[in-house]
Amino acid sequence: MKGRRLLITGAAGFTGRHAVAYFKAAGAEVTAVVRKPSPVSAVQDGAQPYVCDLSDRKAVQAMVDEVRPDEVLHLAGRNSVPESWRDPLVYMETNVMATLYLLEGLRSRPGCRILVAGSRLKYRPGEDAGPPHPYSLSKTLEELVSLAWGTLFKQPVLLAEPCNLIGPGPSTGFCSLLAEHIVRSEAAGGAEGLPQPFKLSSRHTLRDFLDVRDAVRAYDYILKYGETGKVYKIDSGTERELGEIAGRLLALAKTPVPMDWGPEPGDHAAPPPVQSAAGKPEPPEASADNVSRLGWRAETGIEQSLADILDYYRNGKEGR
Amino acid sequence: MKGRRLLITGAAGFTGRHAVAYFKAAGAEVTAVVRKPSPVSAVQDGAQPYVCDLSDRKAVQAMVDEVRPDEVLHLAGRNSVPESWRDPLVYMETNVMATLYLLEGLRSRPGCRILVAGSRLKYRPGEDAGPPHPYSLSKTLEELVSLAWGTLFKQPVLLAEPCNLIGPGPSTGFCSLLAEHIVRSEAAGGAEGLPQPFKLSSRHTLRDFLDVRDAVRAYDYILKYGETGKVYKIDSGTERELGEIAGRLLALAKTPVPMDWGPEPGDHAAPPPVQSAAGKPEPPEASADNVSRLGWRAETGIEQSLADILDYYRNGKEGR
Repeated sequence: MKGRRLLITGAAGFTGRHAVAYFKAAGAEVTAVVRKPSPVSAVQDGAQPYVCDLSDRKAVQAMVDEVRPDEVLHLAGRNSVPESWRDPLVYMETNVMATLYLLEGLRSRPGCRILVAGSRLKYRPGEDAGPPHPYSLSKTLEELVSLAWGTLFKQPVLLAEPCNLIGPGPSTGFCSLLAEHIVRSEAAGGAEGLPQPFKLSSRHTLRDFLDVRDAVRAYDYILKYGETGKVYKIDSGTERELGEIAGRLLALAKTPVPMDWGPEPGDHAAPPPVQSAAGKPEPPEASADNVSRLGWRAETGIEQSLADILDYYRNGKEGR
Repeated sequence: MKGRRLLITGAAGFTGRHAVAYFKAAGAEVTAVVRKPSPVSAVQDGAQPYVCDLSDRKAVQAMVDEVRPDEVLHLAGRNSVPESWRDPLVYMETNVMATLYLLEGLRSRPGCRILVAGSRLKYRPGEDAGPPHPYSLSKTLEELVSLAWGTLFKQPVLLAEPCNLIGPGPSTGFCSLLAEHIVRSEAAGGAEGLPQPFKLSSRHTLRDFLDVRDAVRAYDYILKYGETGKVYKIDSGTERELGEIAGRLLALAKTPVPMDWGPEPGDHAAPPPVQSAAGKPEPPEASADNVSRLGWRAETGIEQSLADILDYYRNGKEGR
């Protein structure tokens, strides 16, 4: 990695900020690509910021020609299911076409390894009835076009499919939302200023949570050792109920936190744990593998991740 | 069909011209969408021409709002494999994004039935190693997004997958190329002005050829009777060697035609007939059906198609 030119897209995002810090520390020459100038400061510590709208084909080619990367970590994209219902075309343009502009631009850099961050929320065309939401469609097609471009134009393209990533930083995931609620409750300092109860009716839903810093290390493994054309799943291997995660976070709260747990477990027969999308039994995919095959292991315990998320909000969203 | 507002995209193309004529004759109120004003004359006989660049999202929405179609036959798109290698992104933009702009625009016309012309050259994501060319990728994704939009937004979307379409008109298919060569040979009127020999080294390649006018009738069947979300294959059911087709066309020539047949059959052991892409044994697809299930049958004999193609070139590319 030392001295290698690594281009990271989506550098101002939740994973992007951790990735920039990690690869900088590892000695890479990091170019941190952001869409707008404003959040550049978030990634400036030692990395070279680069403002580029990836949906502008010519701007992408100009960036590739200027930066001349040896490796690319493509994290940019939209990732909100509700937003994808509101503007599905933007999801197709951002997650599919922008990725294609990047891949096409990188044809002038033969040998440049390209890791594209996919999603476990993809569907299986021809098997599943259809995508459950436009986000799923966009990530499914992003993966297909990335693998196809790799095959058609002999590009070393790799795919990663992380599970639910958690950790300090600007995430809109479940852990971050609850942690923010806890810190707001702590700040209220009394019953008067307490926020509305946090609603958690799906406490039996199972999810595999992984610390974002572990995921970034996994990206490093895939970039270094991954096999071209492969899809690498990244997970901790442990599924937990949302209720368990909530309990662990609430145990770290310094004051009482208003919660709405929905119906009492005694009210109805306890529902069976709900399989998460990631937890669905998946048929083996010829091109899919797990990053643990490359020697990577999750290292950050769930307690550490949750404590760090709380600290992030307690410190006014500073640091990672 | 009578009095129904039908919007046909790609109206100036090979199939589009036949479709406009057919549906006009059937009493539909046809809007013939063309990309540029210049070829409008080709489709003006009774149809309402409409100039629209389908890769312009706003223009597409304006067209839908103005025309307010009851049915759409989406024939527009790029369809040259060699060209798709030269500019693969244009194929993705034209065959995938433009189709999405149309589908998204039509969400304001709930109930509007939309027939999208797909291709037999698609690949099977997750099963095949990858698409053989960018054209295949673009048509595969066009089909996926069309079916997905239908599922996500409850749109009555139907897919058609025609085999090789032949007939009079501006086609760049094998039959048209050879017919044009024959007519040029006839026009030369002597050994001096004869064109270079027509090279046909793949005479054992098998293809299913169908008259374009039969295909247009099949589109009518699918629009009328097809089941939403289904893929309808359209073929004559008979595969023929390219050598047989060439022989039939040459038998209609009025003068000798210079041909280059490649190595004599006696030179090597005769190679086995080559399976065409369309002739590959395909695994059954849950969503796929054949338009013959709807009562459609091919009606135009191969002799008629070939004679009409020759006449088209003999008459200076006039008429259909």
